Amino acid sequence: MKDMKNRKKYIEEINQQQKALNAIRKKLVGKKLNYKEIYAIMDQISKERLGDILTTYFAASGYSKGFTHQEIYYLTKAMVETGEKLKFKGIVADKHSIGGVPGTRTSLIVVPVIAAAGFLIPKSSSRAITTPSGTADDMEVLAKVQFSKEKIYEIVKKTKGCIVWGGSFSVAPADDIIINVEKPLLFESYDKIVVSIMAKKIAFGSNHVVIDLPYGDSVKIHNFKDAKILQEKFEYVAKKFRIKIRVIIHRTDEPAGRGIGPVLETREAIRVLQQKHNRPLDLEIRSINLAGNLLELCLKSSSKKMQKDTKKNFGNGFGWATQILKEGLAFKKMKEIIREQNGNPNIDSEDLVPGKFSFNILAHKKSSIISIDSNSITTIAKMLGAPEDKGAGIYLNKKKGDKVEKGESMCVLYSENMYNLRIVKQTIKHLKIFEFI
Amino acid sequence: MKDMKNRKKYIEEINQQQKALNAIRKKLVGKKLNYKEIYAIMDQISKERLGDILTTYFAASGYSKGFTHQEIYYLTKAMVETGEKLKFKGIVADKHSIGGVPGTRTSLIVVPVIAAAGFLIPKSSSRAITTPSGTADDMEVLAKVQFSKEKIYEIVKKTKGCIVWGGSFSVAPADDIIINVEKPLLFESYDKIVVSIMAKKIAFGSNHVVIDLPYGDSVKIHNFKDAKILQEKFEYVAKKFRIKIRVIIHRTDEPAGRGIGPVLETREAIRVLQQKHNRPLDLEIRSINLAGNLLELCLKSSSKKMQKDTKKNFGNGFGWATQILKEGLAFKKMKEIIREQNGNPNIDSEDLVPGKFSFNILAHKKSSIISIDSNSITTIAKMLGAPEDKGAGIYLNKKKGDKVEKGESMCVLYSENMYNLRIVKQTIKHLKIFEFI
Repeated sequence: MKDMKNRKKYIEEINQQQKALNAIRKKLVGKKLNYKEIYAIMDQISKERLGDILTTYFAASGYSKGFTHQEIYYLTKAMVETGEKLKFKGIVADKHSIGGVPGTRTSLIVVPVIAAAGFLIPKSSSRAITTPSGTADDMEVLAKVQFSKEKIYEIVKKTKGCIVWGGSFSVAPADDIIINVEKPLLFESYDKIVVSIMAKKIAFGSNHVVIDLPYGDSVKIHNFKDAKILQEKFEYVAKKFRIKIRVIIHRTDEPAGRGIGPVLETREAIRVLQQKHNRPLDLEIRSINLAGNLLELCLKSSSKKMQKDTKKNFGNGFGWATQILKEGLAFKKMKEIIREQNGNPNIDSEDLVPGKFSFNILAHKKSSIISIDSNSITTIAKMLGAPEDKGAGIYLNKKKGDKVEKGESMCVLYSENMYNLRIVKQTIKHLKIFEFI
Repeated sequence: MKDMKNRKKYIEEINQQQKALNAIRKKLVGKKLNYKEIYAIMDQISKERLGDILTTYFAASGYSKGFTHQEIYYLTKAMVETGEKLKFKGIVADKHSIGGVPGTRTSLIVVPVIAAAGFLIPKSSSRAITTPSGTADDMEVLAKVQFSKEKIYEIVKKTKGCIVWGGSFSVAPADDIIINVEKPLLFESYDKIVVSIMAKKIAFGSNHVVIDLPYGDSVKIHNFKDAKILQEKFEYVAKKFRIKIRVIIHRTDEPAGRGIGPVLETREAIRVLQQKHNRPLDLEIRSINLAGNLLELCLKSSSKKMQKDTKKNFGNGFGWATQILKEGLAFKKMKEIIREQNGNPNIDSEDLVPGKFSFNILAHKKSSIISIDSNSITTIAKMLGAPEDKGAGIYLNKKKGDKVEKGESMCVLYSENMYNLRIVKQTIKHLKIFEFI
């Protein structure tokens, strides 16, 4: 009897594999897939049955003609269904940046602000895909980021928020496997960005989501038109899953904040949370904008009384977010989260020290900076060792619009080993970080 | 000084890698590539610098929109230029089947026929890609197939022909690396078929080529229209390289010959060469057709006297090929080639014995066979162990149009180990080889 059952299972498995393979071939030649076909692919990827090569064919199949809205919905659904899910009651907030901009670590600020406001925000974040560091890589400087489902429930119950790695337990497991084959390409399709983010949000139980969607010459999305296309896809999928969403499109030419790389980015975020005098104001403004939007979205689903009180006390969501930050409530909340995530809550921004090997890049002549190249920053920070070496990275002393005198420091490169720094010093002339007038 | 040179080389290498990566991304989103971009990809693949995942992205990039004629030419050229080449004087013949039909081992017959006629035919063949065995896998039953460039010159000088593995030395090395990432997909793009075959032919110095292009429901190319598309691509590339080509399109519903798998296929070919009474006539006819066409093509570039003599003695190329086979000259030539390729020339077809474990599939009832499924044959033969296990395979006792009595043998499965045979016996009901009326 058992043998019969095993045989049946074996044959079913072979059939499912065949179905996935046929579906990949079908998509490769530009045909549409139905839910069963997409489910077969996600099922086989999530069970690690396809291997790198076939997973890559699938990842590649979406580039040329892309997926239809319905396919994107199916992909998201199948990605969620082939993994585990978290469930919370009531309003569950979340924010996600589509990334591609190095630095700009808003999540470490937005999560404690929202949690301090009293809303649940179980944040799943990714490790670096195209940038030198992801939010999960950064949070790891302060605390652990990989937890079981049970432990995440516990953290969120105690603090209302968490900042954990999205691949912690089996949440949309196909996503992480696909991300692994996207890494060598340093390139993600628009559809995949939507699927990847929404699947993680849905599996984490979020129902109020703000998407931070920057565009610019040297970031992932190059122009406003593409950003609008992406926004529309996000809104379509959100609607299908009854998620309230706000997609915030804005032009970005350079990182918000001055630090690039895990330690340097985290230091910037903690400076904002601590309201230090040396905090990056552009990062603070960006974070308040995102937190404010998310609070407004959550308020819409809240009681009339709460809406009225907020209006009276803070004017709006943005005022509320600002107040939480100014009063140190966000930093207090962040310390709680760090403690629950097994980190040391007695943190000060200046305790975060980058790699011991450094190289100061000086200005050759008096000039003005007209732009900063995010691609070069990413390449250099990776060559320096980020995100594996937490202290590796770049600190920008000068940014767009700044004037520089001859001999002034433009930026400092940090590395945890001499070799990486030497390689970068040898190749830096081919990778322009700054463009001058 | 040396350090400066190494540094320069290192930077050039990084640049070339970057160029290849950019080109792959460009093609993935459906844009055209120029020669420099295609060369960078082939260069990096041939140097094994891209790895499986990026090579797969490249392989995948050609499926949806395909390549333009010019891109196909560039790909072929770059694939040849990034490897080594053979050079011969005068007419150099070759034939190649686009494959996808299991069995049907015509090359083992055509090569000795052409060489016996006096034309050079340095045949490079592939190992199994989508079928259970390739010509190189089959020839390996009789002799070695992997030789250095020098040794191949020597073999061809002595015997006028050879049947060696196309990956023997560094001939179009990118091709073999790409083939490796195509295998798990069990699927090759039309463009890639053309590039892959033509690059090997050009690198082997061939200038008179016959392409065997079968189509049918259960083989690689499904219909006449697609076959014509492929023919046109072959002719375009051939013209660019000044190669005389004939593409022979024909409908195929089942393997020519009865054997599937290295030993069983080779036995069929040797039976034809030996003109045994049990030889498969369909395979013989197919081979004479290909050899005849190739002789006609070579004759067109030969002296008027030779053309006249052939007409007088054999009528045409087909008559000539038939005569060579009937008189045992092809078998004699094959023995010479086997000897030069370090095999045992004292071969008899009946010495070739398939795997010792076998299973006879009997007819359940009196019936007629209306079709044979090549895909099922391929799957089963692979599950039985082909092409790694030389003796694994299928011998078809019945073919299309045959009547069968209840209890009569339909086909015999052969395997070199009990386990493979058991697995196949358990799953065979899901894989129909025969369709009955």
